[in-house]
Amino acid sequence: MEPMTSLRAWMASRGFQVTIIPSNDCHFDEYVPARFKVREYLSGFDGSAGTLVVTLTEAALWTDSRYFLQAERQIKGRGIELMKIKMPGTPSIPQWIESCRKASGIAPEQYKVGVDGDLFSYDDYFAFCKELAPMPLETFSDPFDSLWPGRPSLGDSPILLHKEEYAGRSVSDKYRDVVSNLGIEGPFCLFLSACDEIMWLLNIRGGDIEYNAVTLSYCLLDNKGIKLFCRKECLTGEASDYLASQGVEVLSYGEIDAALEAVPAEAVRIVSNNCCSINKYKIFSRGKAVMPDPTVGGTVAMLRACKNPVQAQGFRQAFLQDGVCWVRLLKYIYDNYGSGSLNEYNITQKLLEIKSGSAHYLGESFEPIVAWNANAASAHYSVTDEASSARVAGGGFLLMDLGSHYPYGTTDTTRTVFLGEKEPTAAQKEDFTLVLKGMIALAEAIFPAGTRGCQLDILARGPMYRTGKMYFHGTSHGIGQWLCVHESPQIRMEYSPIALQEGMIMSDEPAVYVDGQYGIRTENVVLVSPFAKSDYNTFYRFETLTLVPIDRRAVDFSLLTDAERAWLEAYNKRVYDALQSHLTDAERAWLADYIK
Amino acid sequence: MEPMTSLRAWMASRGFQVTIIPSNDCHFDEYVPARFKVREYLSGFDGSAGTLVVTLTEAALWTDSRYFLQAERQIKGRGIELMKIKMPGTPSIPQWIESCRKASGIAPEQYKVGVDGDLFSYDDYFAFCKELAPMPLETFSDPFDSLWPGRPSLGDSPILLHKEEYAGRSVSDKYRDVVSNLGIEGPFCLFLSACDEIMWLLNIRGGDIEYNAVTLSYCLLDNKGIKLFCRKECLTGEASDYLASQGVEVLSYGEIDAALEAVPAEAVRIVSNNCCSINKYKIFSRGKAVMPDPTVGGTVAMLRACKNPVQAQGFRQAFLQDGVCWVRLLKYIYDNYGSGSLNEYNITQKLLEIKSGSAHYLGESFEPIVAWNANAASAHYSVTDEASSARVAGGGFLLMDLGSHYPYGTTDTTRTVFLGEKEPTAAQKEDFTLVLKGMIALAEAIFPAGTRGCQLDILARGPMYRTGKMYFHGTSHGIGQWLCVHESPQIRMEYSPIALQEGMIMSDEPAVYVDGQYGIRTENVVLVSPFAKSDYNTFYRFETLTLVPIDRRAVDFSLLTDAERAWLEAYNKRVYDALQSHLTDAERAWLADYIK
Repeated sequence: MEPMTSLRAWMASRGFQVTIIPSNDCHFDEYVPARFKVREYLSGFDGSAGTLVVTLTEAALWTDSRYFLQAERQIKGRGIELMKIKMPGTPSIPQWIESCRKASGIAPEQYKVGVDGDLFSYDDYFAFCKELAPMPLETFSDPFDSLWPGRPSLGDSPILLHKEEYAGRSVSDKYRDVVSNLGIEGPFCLFLSACDEIMWLLNIRGGDIEYNAVTLSYCLLDNKGIKLFCRKECLTGEASDYLASQGVEVLSYGEIDAALEAVPAEAVRIVSNNCCSINKYKIFSRGKAVMPDPTVGGTVAMLRACKNPVQAQGFRQAFLQDGVCWVRLLKYIYDNYGSGSLNEYNITQKLLEIKSGSAHYLGESFEPIVAWNANAASAHYSVTDEASSARVAGGGFLLMDLGSHYPYGTTDTTRTVFLGEKEPTAAQKEDFTLVLKGMIALAEAIFPAGTRGCQLDILARGPMYRTGKMYFHGTSHGIGQWLCVHESPQIRMEYSPIALQEGMIMSDEPAVYVDGQYGIRTENVVLVSPFAKSDYNTFYRFETLTLVPIDRRAVDFSLLTDAERAWLEAYNKRVYDALQSHLTDAERAWLADYIK
Repeated sequence: MEPMTSLRAWMASRGFQVTIIPSNDCHFDEYVPARFKVREYLSGFDGSAGTLVVTLTEAALWTDSRYFLQAERQIKGRGIELMKIKMPGTPSIPQWIESCRKASGIAPEQYKVGVDGDLFSYDDYFAFCKELAPMPLETFSDPFDSLWPGRPSLGDSPILLHKEEYAGRSVSDKYRDVVSNLGIEGPFCLFLSACDEIMWLLNIRGGDIEYNAVTLSYCLLDNKGIKLFCRKECLTGEASDYLASQGVEVLSYGEIDAALEAVPAEAVRIVSNNCCSINKYKIFSRGKAVMPDPTVGGTVAMLRACKNPVQAQGFRQAFLQDGVCWVRLLKYIYDNYGSGSLNEYNITQKLLEIKSGSAHYLGESFEPIVAWNANAASAHYSVTDEASSARVAGGGFLLMDLGSHYPYGTTDTTRTVFLGEKEPTAAQKEDFTLVLKGMIALAEAIFPAGTRGCQLDILARGPMYRTGKMYFHGTSHGIGQWLCVHESPQIRMEYSPIALQEGMIMSDEPAVYVDGQYGIRTENVVLVSPFAKSDYNTFYRFETLTLVPIDRRAVDFSLLTDAERAWLEAYNKRVYDALQSHLTDAERAWLADYIK
């Protein structure tokens, strides 16, 4: 039976007129384990963001502008309508459901909408309840073990120790920090369900989600200590011993509900970051008020976001090693460009081969993007096989967005290089240079304590506006240490209420995308560092961590100020100085020539 | 009897343990008519912002950093403690009241706190209720007609017509705009109590508040039309005829309560901008829900903020005339500097003399600031008499912040000039130049639709951060047309959620204040104008309206980019070109020399 047919049969048997299928797992991770990719299984659309809504006769998929083209292609012929989020005329999910209901002639009170109560946050659930009323919204339990033949299992990725020599702080230290920052008098219980917060807190790492070093888990933190709920059998001896040494009680993943129920009545209940499913919320709150996390951005998330000096040093080491790999990859591309044999796929394979030789390399931190010309105009392009891969020949921009995990740091670097015999056009040079100007302007910002990301965003975006162009993604995201490459809370700095704080590590990635022609993005990663303390305030600057040369060929130097020219020269020189002792003679000579 | 003694006697007679005296009038105007300056009468402190709290034995005054020094001086010896807002250790008003109560030994339920219900917005009132509980918060009616001997009357300033040839739209047109932007189906009633919103809507102006062309008034706008509540006897024949021609019903100021009570039960009640006293709110809402204004920033306020082309042209004319006055004043200062006779007071007098010769000049738009060296380090300095006025001699920075009302436009310009034979120091030049760089950067911004002020603020602030200095006031405020020089909603752009829109007129005024030495502020006024429309978005730019030369003497040209140098030269040339035909030969020659 077709996936949608099975689902509809199940819906009919349960009396649901509609089901809403989000892209979440139970922990609201940005990316989800394969077994939670139900929306992809049903719709064929495999982008990272999308919500599928299925009635007994209709279906529609909501996704954002990053995925319009891809979704259109992937859902074709499946009887699913594409709903383009934020475009004029696109109905909201409740509006669309209401229009289906009207067409069906069924009374609202009889038009039962179902959601998996583990996959909806309590915020979203209550919002939908309100908007759908008087249609009833009911939760159900995951039916896909039977509806999805061959559904992937969660696997048995080991839960590893993240050594204190890299983490910089013990779990006991972090526990004290969290308790002190919560600042609650008397008994309390903090419920964590965001896996990367739990990994950070407990100095462990997992492998349940591709590229993200997390294990599915819950955590309760109260006046007495920490309880971890995970697949105990996956814990390595090292991790298990460490957790025991730190007084962490380890329970089975399935024991969380009983533990939530057992929270003493008098304890102040706190959920972190609104990241809590309606099912867990109901158990946790049962008759008691639940308090939102008292720290803007989340108590644990803010502590995790501010890297300590040991962590910062680890990131520096990671970026140094990554820089060496990048130089090898770039040299390979330039050496082989003339042969006409390069394509997006074999460049990606070469990259992985080079990285596999880098000490302590644990894998890529996200799906590598190697995109040639027009392929780079969609911001999240990635190539999966050689057959569909573009030949890198004939001249143009090659955009590469690549990142690595090391136990001491995670990298994320984008470079766009201009290849070919023909010189870039004036428009290509202008676009490349304005992106570079934006990247430099943000990297060079000095700002006082209390400055929020939205107050700096214009520095990266501003130069491109003169051409009437802009990019529609965020300028910056936080980066986890051998964790999630997109780390809250400073993600999407243009709206975040979070003030930037010392130790935050974040990307600086302005871009421009010209439909059907090319995409240009230049991304460095920066560390919020002290600049000055005066009678007026404490001021911060960014330290650039990335050590990958920036291509000069498409730079229109007449568009740069003296300071920007000096910045570019000094940056490439710094890259050379840092990397040269780790390069072969041939690589060193190539790099010296490349940055000239 | 001393003012505080009379107040306490009255409090005792009414059973109040505490009264809270804000700086408001009944309309929450930024500045208030003299008869509402009760806080000043009681405390001696005449700054624009401050809240006095009086118990039967204690008193304390809360004010912000702009006024710490001034307040300290003015309240000295009056038994009032200064509470520095946002400084570590400063209690909130409810915290302080609670500590007084504890000291008194009186039970909370008996410790009655009183406020004038016409001077507290409903938001503030409910917030205080919550924070003070279980202490009771009760409203009283203004007792100061009897407690304040010689209390100023409101006067009888005429209510004048603001001609359509300047306003650019009729009241009927504006009524239709408001109704359409409210977008409410069925009966509704919008209650306006912000005087400048009412003036704008009805094309009238008043003179109840110094510098602000408003008359104290209320307004109800419903499906049938507009009712204005004002001192009818102050209406000029012209204004009265115009209002009649537009179908506006004019009632007495005192009739508002009856009209609020008569709003039909079925009408959706809307208050604009939360600018509604708890007294009026209680009458308006009686048993019915009151809806906040559906437009972020306020429906009327947003319409008023976006000037139409006729208004924009009027502002250009106002800035042209003001530019001529500025050149005359600057020439006078430079011509007479050598004589040693200049002081802050006689420069201000000269300014008023010059302006009185400018066609259609209606008066200053705020209290003129002429501040020499260290006097300019406090951002809101103003001089009131010759005796206390500093002699402008010996070299240094003279900061002048001046504005005019014309019927077609209002100006607000700050220039800082360096006078004397000795050259400015490197630090002085650096400070002056970094302020200028910030002003230029904001003026030159290009930005897409949807950009909020907070996203541009860094452009003005950023350059100064490198020196570890910053200013603590806003970078920008909206400007009313012959109305309030500080016009919402784009005031304090660093926090405002308002997206900048075509036609908004706003200041661009970065600054630096060096305690005990000098203040430097350079302020131009800009108009949000179309820049480009592309496949990506609609983009805006700023048109600079101000036409006053910028002093070059303290510019460190080595700190400017080529583009900034060109901007400065082009700007001063543009000023010359625009003004020259309105100047005498001597003035023209002086200006040509000054900008060289």
